Amino acid sequence: MGKLYVIGIGPGGFPHMTIRAMDAIKESDIIVGYNKYIDMIKPLLAGKEIFSTGMKGEEERCKKALELSHDKIVSVVSTGDSGIYGMAGLILQLRMDEEIEVIPGVTASSAAASVLGAPLMHDNCNISLSDLMTPYELIQNRVNLAAEGDFVISLYNPKSKGRPHYLRECINIIKMHRDGTTPIAVVKNALRDGQEVSISTLDTFDDNIADMLSIVIIGNSQSYVKDGKFITPRGYNV
Amino acid sequence: MGKLYVIGIGPGGFPHMTIRAMDAIKESDIIVGYNKYIDMIKPLLAGKEIFSTGMKGEEERCKKALELSHDKIVSVVSTGDSGIYGMAGLILQLRMDEEIEVIPGVTASSAAASVLGAPLMHDNCNISLSDLMTPYELIQNRVNLAAEGDFVISLYNPKSKGRPHYLRECINIIKMHRDGTTPIAVVKNALRDGQEVSISTLDTFDDNIADMLSIVIIGNSQSYVKDGKFITPRGYNV
Ligand SMILES: C[S@@+](CC[C@H](N)C(=O)[O-])C[C@H]1O[C@@H](n2cnc3c(N)ncnc32)[C@H](O)[C@@H]1O
Ligand SMILES: C[S@@+](CC[C@H](N)C(=O)[O-])C[C@H]1O[C@@H](n2cnc3c(N)ncnc32)[C@H](O)[C@@H]1O
Repeated sequence: MGKLYVIGIGPGGFPHMTIRAMDAIKESDIIVGYNKYIDMIKPLLAGKEIFSTGMKGEEERCKKALELSHDKIVSVVSTGDSGIYGMAGLILQLRMDEEIEVIPGVTASSAAASVLGAPLMHDNCNISLSDLMTPYELIQNRVNLAAEGDFVISLYNPKSKGRPHYLRECINIIKMHRDGTTPIAVVKNALRDGQEVSISTLDTFDDNIADMLSIVIIGNSQSYVKDGKFITPRGYNV
Repeated sequence: MGKLYVIGIGPGGFPHMTIRAMDAIKESDIIVGYNKYIDMIKPLLAGKEIFSTGMKGEEERCKKALELSHDKIVSVVSTGDSGIYGMAGLILQLRMDEEIEVIPGVTASSAAASVLGAPLMHDNCNISLSDLMTPYELIQNRVNLAAEGDFVISLYNPKSKGRPHYLRECINIIKMHRDGTTPIAVVKNALRDGQEVSISTLDTFDDNIADMLSIVIIGNSQSYVKDGKFITPRGYNV
């Protein structure tokens, strides 16, 4: 009798993994995931079978994991939360009758926010700038509506070689709705080795510092920086 | 030499707390928080001083925590992620020069999503229906823009006695943009004692089942239910 865990391991380092995620990995016979995520949890993997492939092998990895779970305990690992731009969706889309448990994790926006202070304290949204499976027009439209609605905005996948200008263009869309002094932050490798933080404003923002390992957070109209901390107050004066 | 931890304990039960959150609580001399959250972590609190007050005492609690942290190790606890409608904002707003570390947690939308399947797999937003510090017109406007942008929508604080009709009204706004067959779920007490799950559609939704302990998740135009699992596919056909 097998089982499949779909696990979010959090931002990367062990401390910010949940106890349930760690226990499920320990209990598993086989671990399936992208090489880099497997490396992050290596100390937990002694004696386990590993099935890892490069970035592009997502569907292959999911199918393999489902198949193996018929008679083994298998964990598919994503960083952050497996339910936010992670593996949970594809696994459930491909599922036949396998027993599956999704174990949530701390997603990148929460991890980055904790490093910055409290930028997500009010209504906020997560938008991915990856156009692999979403038309760029829809992405731009979402950025525009989120900016119009005064949402705090977290941009996942802000940069890749194939679309170097998207981040700049999306920031320009946001500037049409929000003051140039609005805080914006880039957090690279939040809460894991190589963490780098940069806080600026929409007017002074340099999009070159963001890359694939970064998340970008843009404040709402009430956000401010105090003593180096990026804060969005809990409310509006009503 | 004191220190202040601002901790998100996750949805409620121990398993979904991070290792860092648990270690920081164990290390603390004093724990500050709303009674109900203190109860959730009771087994960790033997021998510690507890400073808890009812729901309304938020500012008082934060000030006390900051003061105590001058010479003690203090943890302020929120459920979920302390940076999302939690205590991190107010603490940082009130901070003078105290040493503070924000420790992120699994927020309610991620917790509920893991129970449902994978509803948050694409661009999504968190909106609180609480009008304590936000004008209701702004909340409605956000719901409208989020619906127009085809975001998956998580509604925090969906119901309270003082505003029994907001949830119904916001769902009606969403219905102006989204098909009546769109999945909508209510998860009460996600991943803690008393968990209840209900999945329906915008047309058949009964807002009476949602309460203060629930979160409501509305799918995007691509979301569907398969074998009882609420799934938002990773992309659009491009
Ligand atoms: C395919 S998505 C995976 C998201 C992940 N499932 C989550 O919930 O955080 C990859 C993107 O997540 C963001 N990301 C993931 N981990 C991060 C970290 N530790 N620091 C900063 N950004 C991170 C980056 O924007 C990256 O391009
Ligand atoms: C003041 S907010 C706190 C949010 C918390 N800081 C977080 O990140 O999840 C309270 C609201 O969060 C949601 N919530 C918190 N924990 C929940 C759980 N375990 N299950 C369902 N909803 C929850 C409910 O919508 C509730 O009304």
